[in-house]
Amino acid sequence: MNVLSDHACKNQPTPAPVRIGITFGDVTGVGPEVIVKALAQIFAGCVTPVRDAPVEFVLYGDRGWWERVVQQLTSLRALHSEMAASLLLDRLAWADSIVGPLPQRLAPGDAQAAQAAVRWLEAAARDCLKGDLDAMVTGPVHKAAIQRAGIRFVGQTEFLGALAGEPEPVMMLLGTDPAGRWLRVALVTVHVALREVPSRLSVQRIVRTIECAREACERLRLPRTKVAVCGLNPHCGEDGAFGDEEKRLIQPALERAREQGWQVEGPCSGDTVFHHALQGRFDAVVAMYHDQGLAPLKAVAFDTGVNWSLGLPFIRTSPDHGTAYDIAGRGMADATSMRCALELACQLAVQARQSAASAAHMYRD
Amino acid sequence: MNVLSDHACKNQPTPAPVRIGITFGDVTGVGPEVIVKALAQIFAGCVTPVRDAPVEFVLYGDRGWWERVVQQLTSLRALHSEMAASLLLDRLAWADSIVGPLPQRLAPGDAQAAQAAVRWLEAAARDCLKGDLDAMVTGPVHKAAIQRAGIRFVGQTEFLGALAGEPEPVMMLLGTDPAGRWLRVALVTVHVALREVPSRLSVQRIVRTIECAREACERLRLPRTKVAVCGLNPHCGEDGAFGDEEKRLIQPALERAREQGWQVEGPCSGDTVFHHALQGRFDAVVAMYHDQGLAPLKAVAFDTGVNWSLGLPFIRTSPDHGTAYDIAGRGMADATSMRCALELACQLAVQARQSAASAAHMYRD
Repeated sequence: MNVLSDHACKNQPTPAPVRIGITFGDVTGVGPEVIVKALAQIFAGCVTPVRDAPVEFVLYGDRGWWERVVQQLTSLRALHSEMAASLLLDRLAWADSIVGPLPQRLAPGDAQAAQAAVRWLEAAARDCLKGDLDAMVTGPVHKAAIQRAGIRFVGQTEFLGALAGEPEPVMMLLGTDPAGRWLRVALVTVHVALREVPSRLSVQRIVRTIECAREACERLRLPRTKVAVCGLNPHCGEDGAFGDEEKRLIQPALERAREQGWQVEGPCSGDTVFHHALQGRFDAVVAMYHDQGLAPLKAVAFDTGVNWSLGLPFIRTSPDHGTAYDIAGRGMADATSMRCALELACQLAVQARQSAASAAHMYRD
Repeated sequence: MNVLSDHACKNQPTPAPVRIGITFGDVTGVGPEVIVKALAQIFAGCVTPVRDAPVEFVLYGDRGWWERVVQQLTSLRALHSEMAASLLLDRLAWADSIVGPLPQRLAPGDAQAAQAAVRWLEAAARDCLKGDLDAMVTGPVHKAAIQRAGIRFVGQTEFLGALAGEPEPVMMLLGTDPAGRWLRVALVTVHVALREVPSRLSVQRIVRTIECAREACERLRLPRTKVAVCGLNPHCGEDGAFGDEEKRLIQPALERAREQGWQVEGPCSGDTVFHHALQGRFDAVVAMYHDQGLAPLKAVAFDTGVNWSLGLPFIRTSPDHGTAYDIAGRGMADATSMRCALELACQLAVQARQSAASAAHMYRD
């Protein structure tokens, strides 16, 4: 059974597969390796992204590099040879004419690799905007390497936001602890000096982050969309004893959120809220800054953590690790986060199709 | 066998028991309840603080209140009646003449309860300083209630620091995750508005915190004393791209620490360092501010978390929760953190005695 068939009428053509673009990222990092391993796990059927839904993966990368990585992982016994074969056959679609073939060897952080990573990223995003892709999953890039290659670049999320005309996407990280309990964390500020965090907060930005976190819960089809909002200061400033941002900014944002009818709670003390979220009291947590949200998330869900860019007009996920140049090419990179990123993208893409089909069906009636 | 017997010479008197003072904290909160429950667990032998070492617990609190809590917990079936009996017999020593008997009922945060909490705290600390106690464990107080009662008060740790002539004690929180893996986190700043954290950091304060964290590992008799030091900014500021405190303050502090021959690593990215610590790469982590250290610690070790005040001339531990007025008197407070605080105090006190005996032995030889 195809998950789309509930909504498909008889005599209609079989629905086209959901198309998931995957960008290599920086080929001198672990990106291609974790993509190979994650797809191998998915193709082996150990993991089914979305039950019985047809999915097509489209690779934005260098085919020669891919073949070498597959061969290398096979010879390192990090990949079963049967799996290797399946990854070299035409189960995969390619968008490989975007950049000319890369040299067989490149030093970590090489400018050619950095430039190619950005070209692939841009091409996949444009295909998402055109509707040729249902979602994209991005391999890790190295910001400084891209800047050294002469490209103005803050980060992949910001790049995609600018391309899509959405200057302020919201980063959410999701992961499960060893007991399978979820943490979902959306960040009000991300790559900002700690010193500047207080001045970067605004009621509007906090409301926007709550809104995105809430919508994320809906898109994940959770039975509830209860969002906890962290305070900025220790113990939420203990009623103004140290810091007033809770009163000036976070409380007003919570009031606006409640006026919208959203289920929110806060300001919650940043040191205890993640424990309560793990216990199921909240479905998502809005953190005010990077380490407040990601230190607890990565402490409990290091391998399974996935980044999901909210507020973009298309679906984009990525693993929550970097290029890890130091272990690239050695067959030892853990592909769990990439596999989780692929699974999440597939799930969201299929559900978006279902929602669209369902809306069209209602319209027809 | 007594753990002290290895060092005790024949014909010497049996060593006096290690004396652990326990302050009730605010009686209108969960303090007395978690002390009752934790001691019940220890007396029941489910938990042995230190194998075969004689320990005497000295309660700094109200005996009438204690008896009522024991009776109430028994009637709520939160305490076995046999256990209740043992907690009312003379297995416990009392320092109960410090405050006159409290009324049988007090509203949460009542001024009499707040004042009594501070008196017990001070008395126990003075007994530690005099050498009448080997360690103290403090029940939770409510800062605002104490201030409302007309007492200048920042926190128990600060109060003890002032009393002991050590203005800047270092807070360490320790706990185990469900798999039994330890996190030990020492904080450079604690109850400070986030906005003020960068200006409160100094090379000296960071070095002092590293020193205390390192000594803590030694006093815990860990086989290694490797301390990770967090950066302040996300990803340690990515080489100055956002924030320079890593270069200006944290790197120089690390250099000084290395000059002392201490094993340190850093600056480490605050979002990933706790994962690595859980994996055993580090024995303790120095965090720059409250939520950076405590959000991950409490996400993985909520129930087992214990506070240990480093840099004081005596041993002091406490549970890592507050008065929890909302659940006080209902028999539902979790005593795990208090039990862990008692166990840690006992362990440290016995080991301190051993070290002292061992030093005396060497001197004799």
